[in-house]
Amino acid sequence: MTKFRFELLARDGTARTGVIHTPRGDIRTPAFMPVGTAATVKAMLPQSVRETGADILLGNTYHLMLRPGAERIARLGGLHKFMDWPRPILTDSGGFQVMSLSALRKITEEGVKFQSHIDGHEEVLSPERAMEIQRLLGSDIQMVFDECPALPATHEAIEKSMALSMRWAKRSKAAFEQQSDDEQKGRACFGIVQGGTFADLRIRSAEALQEIGFGGYAVGGLAVGEPQSAMFETLEATVPHLPAEKPRYLMGVGKPDDIVGAVLRGIDMFDCVLPTRSGRNGQAFTSEGALNLKNARFAEDRAPLDADCTCPACRQFSRAYLHHVVKSGEIIAAMLLTWHNLTYYQRLMGELRQAIAGSRLAAWIAAYHAARPSADVLVSP
Amino acid sequence: MTKFRFELLARDGTARTGVIHTPRGDIRTPAFMPVGTAATVKAMLPQSVRETGADILLGNTYHLMLRPGAERIARLGGLHKFMDWPRPILTDSGGFQVMSLSALRKITEEGVKFQSHIDGHEEVLSPERAMEIQRLLGSDIQMVFDECPALPATHEAIEKSMALSMRWAKRSKAAFEQQSDDEQKGRACFGIVQGGTFADLRIRSAEALQEIGFGGYAVGGLAVGEPQSAMFETLEATVPHLPAEKPRYLMGVGKPDDIVGAVLRGIDMFDCVLPTRSGRNGQAFTSEGALNLKNARFAEDRAPLDADCTCPACRQFSRAYLHHVVKSGEIIAAMLLTWHNLTYYQRLMGELRQAIAGSRLAAWIAAYHAARPSADVLVSP
Repeated sequence: MTKFRFELLARDGTARTGVIHTPRGDIRTPAFMPVGTAATVKAMLPQSVRETGADILLGNTYHLMLRPGAERIARLGGLHKFMDWPRPILTDSGGFQVMSLSALRKITEEGVKFQSHIDGHEEVLSPERAMEIQRLLGSDIQMVFDECPALPATHEAIEKSMALSMRWAKRSKAAFEQQSDDEQKGRACFGIVQGGTFADLRIRSAEALQEIGFGGYAVGGLAVGEPQSAMFETLEATVPHLPAEKPRYLMGVGKPDDIVGAVLRGIDMFDCVLPTRSGRNGQAFTSEGALNLKNARFAEDRAPLDADCTCPACRQFSRAYLHHVVKSGEIIAAMLLTWHNLTYYQRLMGELRQAIAGSRLAAWIAAYHAARPSADVLVSP
Repeated sequence: MTKFRFELLARDGTARTGVIHTPRGDIRTPAFMPVGTAATVKAMLPQSVRETGADILLGNTYHLMLRPGAERIARLGGLHKFMDWPRPILTDSGGFQVMSLSALRKITEEGVKFQSHIDGHEEVLSPERAMEIQRLLGSDIQMVFDECPALPATHEAIEKSMALSMRWAKRSKAAFEQQSDDEQKGRACFGIVQGGTFADLRIRSAEALQEIGFGGYAVGGLAVGEPQSAMFETLEATVPHLPAEKPRYLMGVGKPDDIVGAVLRGIDMFDCVLPTRSGRNGQAFTSEGALNLKNARFAEDRAPLDADCTCPACRQFSRAYLHHVVKSGEIIAAMLLTWHNLTYYQRLMGELRQAIAGSRLAAWIAAYHAARPSADVLVSP
């Protein structure tokens, strides 16, 4: 059986391109993972997600543990079979969402006690339970349970939170290792660097995680409202302290130009709800920048959404049609714009991989920004 | 260019099977037309609608005239191009929906003045305007403008309404004929028999329409709350008075067993929102009868929705998955159940066509009802 293995193919400055090999298929990096929160990438059939070029999806532990439940998914044969996605799945640990979505949460050394946002029933997430859930789901890349504090916060508060996350990372790794050999074959556990925008804390966190040892290293706690420059500075402070031979994952990011800037700074993996969520809100990413299809100027626009794109929205319909179905609140609007936005993101990742492989990333980025004077101004993650 | 032509292939009692030839493609009868209200069959891409086996769609004049507007669709190249459905489209005349959806309507001999249900602006529909809109849309089968009274109503009220509809039918036909020859090539105008559940009025209406002369004859004003037996009795009174060589269309019908009973009584064409609307509400038509996927008994049901079906919902997913996405309100639930229900309806029509061609319709219907002891009890149109 294929073991989980990261193969570095080329570097261009700090940026790199490679392949993560897993038993369920290869993941080309830099990779964008569409978010399949509740066992579905919203408004897409799984084969359509694959057609956009996605090699891997992200599933949300928090959502799936509450509905339909991890034990239930396990009894039904695991998440891949349940949602008909045979390729790799990465699951988060629920740490971020338990902080942002649940009510009446109580954080202790042991873990987090909280009430479901669906029906109010009480649940507990701990490092051990988060890893158990991810095993039950059958996740290929399992994330440690961490605390994700809101920014801005004081150095003291972030330090305390980071230290707790590091203790939880150690317990998460131990729980992952206690899972049977068979289950671990070809699966990986990733650590998550915390520390807010404080370089010293990020470095300590990166070092603490490497003492534990992980199959990959994520940067968490960013894209929570800080300016892009702060995110990039934090990456510049953190990435040199991560091992070159392991994949690096920037969690929850982001807008296309966030991704471009993070790839330039050495990140290999991304996930974000932006392409799917903004697709449901009538927004589209195009070669000319982001467009809001609700805008009346598209009402008789015969042009395709993006002349460079091969997705069904662009091949089969005019901007005028997309404007009409967005304005009418039709489900096909969500279907077509989600498909388009995911295609746009995957094409972006493909171009980044080729630019890195060809040692022409700087030129590619200059051309990218020149073509999009107003890029991404409409949307925020 | 192909002219509009109905070819009768076989009869089995009063039931018949045939083909309507049109420049945009053949329509196999008995035919079910999925409803594409606002230039989209809700929750479906047009190629997926075709994959279910649909030869023709229905578009709604009332909805399209209000948004995006008939003149706008004409400027954009017509409805077929706008919604990427190159095959035949039948449009209703707006008569039914102006009665059921609009506010403050005023009916005169001239037509109907009403306020849009979207933004309240005042509009007028008349026989002449209804035919103009259908020409602007580029409809292949255009329906006369009629009044559709609510049932139950007195003989006197229905007689008066029917007489108005017959005068409007004459004006509709004249307006259709005044459209340029080029536009009329291969397009048809259908009359609509009215008269409630009164046999004498239905017969008079059928005769009045034939004096005008139409490419096909619809039975309107049914499926508005009357019992199925009343609908079938009305068909039995009406169909013998319609010409055998023209297609017969029962508007707005219906549940699968309504369709089966109407085919038995000589109807060739149907449309109904039921498969699409109930798909969005978590209901599925299956070989075992109608199922409500919200039901907790499906939460761990590994079986496919319908073992006899080849649609993506049945091939790729379990009932447990469908239950989960229905309960979670996910868009994929509407997509999958709509696809399934349309596939179910088209398979039903195919089986009816084959049973008629094989002169075994009575046996087929007996087997159909035997397999569905609780058929269709969950749903109403």
